[in-house]
Amino acid sequence: MTIKAIVIPVLIAGAVITTNMASAEDGLESYRNRFEALPHLPPIPADNSLTEEKIELGNMLFFEPRISSSGVISCATCHNPALGWADRIPRAVGHDGQIGERNTPTVLNSGFLESQFWDGRAADLEAQALGPIEAPVEMAMDLEMALDRLVGFELYQEKFGEAYPNQEDPITDDNLAHALAAFQRTLNTPSSPFDRYLHGDQEAISEQAKDGMVAFVDNGCIACHRGSNFTDSQFHAIQVPGSTDLGRYVVTEEESDKYRFRTPTLRNVAVTYPYMNNGATETLEEAVAIMGQEMLGREFDDDTIGDITAFLNTLTGEMPEFEVPALP
Amino acid sequence: MTIKAIVIPVLIAGAVITTNMASAEDGLESYRNRFEALPHLPPIPADNSLTEEKIELGNMLFFEPRISSSGVISCATCHNPALGWADRIPRAVGHDGQIGERNTPTVLNSGFLESQFWDGRAADLEAQALGPIEAPVEMAMDLEMALDRLVGFELYQEKFGEAYPNQEDPITDDNLAHALAAFQRTLNTPSSPFDRYLHGDQEAISEQAKDGMVAFVDNGCIACHRGSNFTDSQFHAIQVPGSTDLGRYVVTEEESDKYRFRTPTLRNVAVTYPYMNNGATETLEEAVAIMGQEMLGREFDDDTIGDITAFLNTLTGEMPEFEVPALP
Repeated sequence: MTIKAIVIPVLIAGAVITTNMASAEDGLESYRNRFEALPHLPPIPADNSLTEEKIELGNMLFFEPRISSSGVISCATCHNPALGWADRIPRAVGHDGQIGERNTPTVLNSGFLESQFWDGRAADLEAQALGPIEAPVEMAMDLEMALDRLVGFELYQEKFGEAYPNQEDPITDDNLAHALAAFQRTLNTPSSPFDRYLHGDQEAISEQAKDGMVAFVDNGCIACHRGSNFTDSQFHAIQVPGSTDLGRYVVTEEESDKYRFRTPTLRNVAVTYPYMNNGATETLEEAVAIMGQEMLGREFDDDTIGDITAFLNTLTGEMPEFEVPALP
Repeated sequence: MTIKAIVIPVLIAGAVITTNMASAEDGLESYRNRFEALPHLPPIPADNSLTEEKIELGNMLFFEPRISSSGVISCATCHNPALGWADRIPRAVGHDGQIGERNTPTVLNSGFLESQFWDGRAADLEAQALGPIEAPVEMAMDLEMALDRLVGFELYQEKFGEAYPNQEDPITDDNLAHALAAFQRTLNTPSSPFDRYLHGDQEAISEQAKDGMVAFVDNGCIACHRGSNFTDSQFHAIQVPGSTDLGRYVVTEEESDKYRFRTPTLRNVAVTYPYMNNGATETLEEAVAIMGQEMLGREFDDDTIGDITAFLNTLTGEMPEFEVPALP
């Protein structure tokens, strides 16, 4: 493997990152130390304890199409476990075949994010959960009607009762959101090859992927894609080819937030194509090149693109366990 | 339990069925002997051997939304394993939210049927498999384009190659249909409480369900809903409330086939609501009453409806094993 002899300060999002050439071994160690393995669970909020009962209920609700107005769209339609818990099309297709504005983010490891949606308009999974149910281009459902449908099933009365004991009428919007959030906090991929590498298994990733790790640091990708979930949770301005999406501005209406999007995770990025807020970028190589140009002002050569892509491919973890529930 | 003292010949579909009052035990034995437990596998056609490789490929394809034109509808959208491998809405919702003409039949035990679709227009699962992919109100996909998409994935090239060795270009419409059919032949529910009862476990079903079994025979339901899959595979004329569907006539254009539909299976009927060709009947009790009126010319009393419903509830088997595949 080769360590690139790049010694430059890279200024991104206010952080100065200085990289140094060193002996190959020391060098790798110092690079490796810039990363964090993924914990098995994300932080659990004090007001939504992670109980087996809530997880089971959330699992049912995640696959429940009757909480959409058509009766055929569930969370799992766009966050499809067969497709990296996303949909592998550019932009989400929802109610009556309407096409949304943005690419579906994976729910994998979403409990580690400090805000939800591309524009961060929900602070946490609880605040996120009901949005797609009500969104006219997604499940297009009146929330009261969704709750009424759930009330109509004895099994849901029982399961909500078990998940939220001592509540007289536990089938509420809050409890629905909390159960979905609880289930999603279990959908993590902590055992990627790169995590195994960080835990000390030198053979877990290829030499090319190690070169990619170095390039990822040296070129400053890590400035934004950092921490155990490869995101700084900050909003950065970017206009990828074909996008006119105003991003964070839609939420804050502050001029300075135009075209800003929350840094997406890179975990499982190889299985959650296509890329960018508009899903217009099909391959990882293309995405790496675009990010080099747009965010770093660099034209990566083919070797660098290949190395970084090899590195990103090591971030695909083992898919989490879940049940295909027997719905009532 | 009570044996109804009904001694009448019932003429249905050309078969004369005579029932006799007997001692409770003898009586039950003679009733039980009218039924057949479900085999673990349906007949396997000579030209589509059931191999592990085809089953695995068929499992992938069954969950593959990219063979729909929207990229989000797979076989599993309407034949949803969480919903008894059907959709639990009156009529199927397909491409762009279009609503089809008929209720989605479950694929469970469909390998035992002697023809497919409500109107029997496909002779077997192989002939059935491609219909919904191409149907404009279902997946609305051009078949050549579907095959092209599959060719675009290395994993499908590999899996088709393994399922159909020694073929130069194995990704063909025939092989697609054969793999889907092979997978579906594994989706059987042989271990229902009633099957266990037929295998000798007297406690497997309730006394009320045994009463229902007797009523099911005595009233002639068994004339059409017979054999291990509870269907005679024949086409019977019926116009349920709200339906103007011409049924089998659409296929044959013979006047005598107007309003005829293939007898549906009753296996898993409790988990494959709503009922009838137009899905307009929500409950099993209602369905039993309608069938009594329309097919048998009888007004069942509430006890009989309750008993037959209890019997039908014993036909829900253990759901078959399958994988949520990791799609490419």
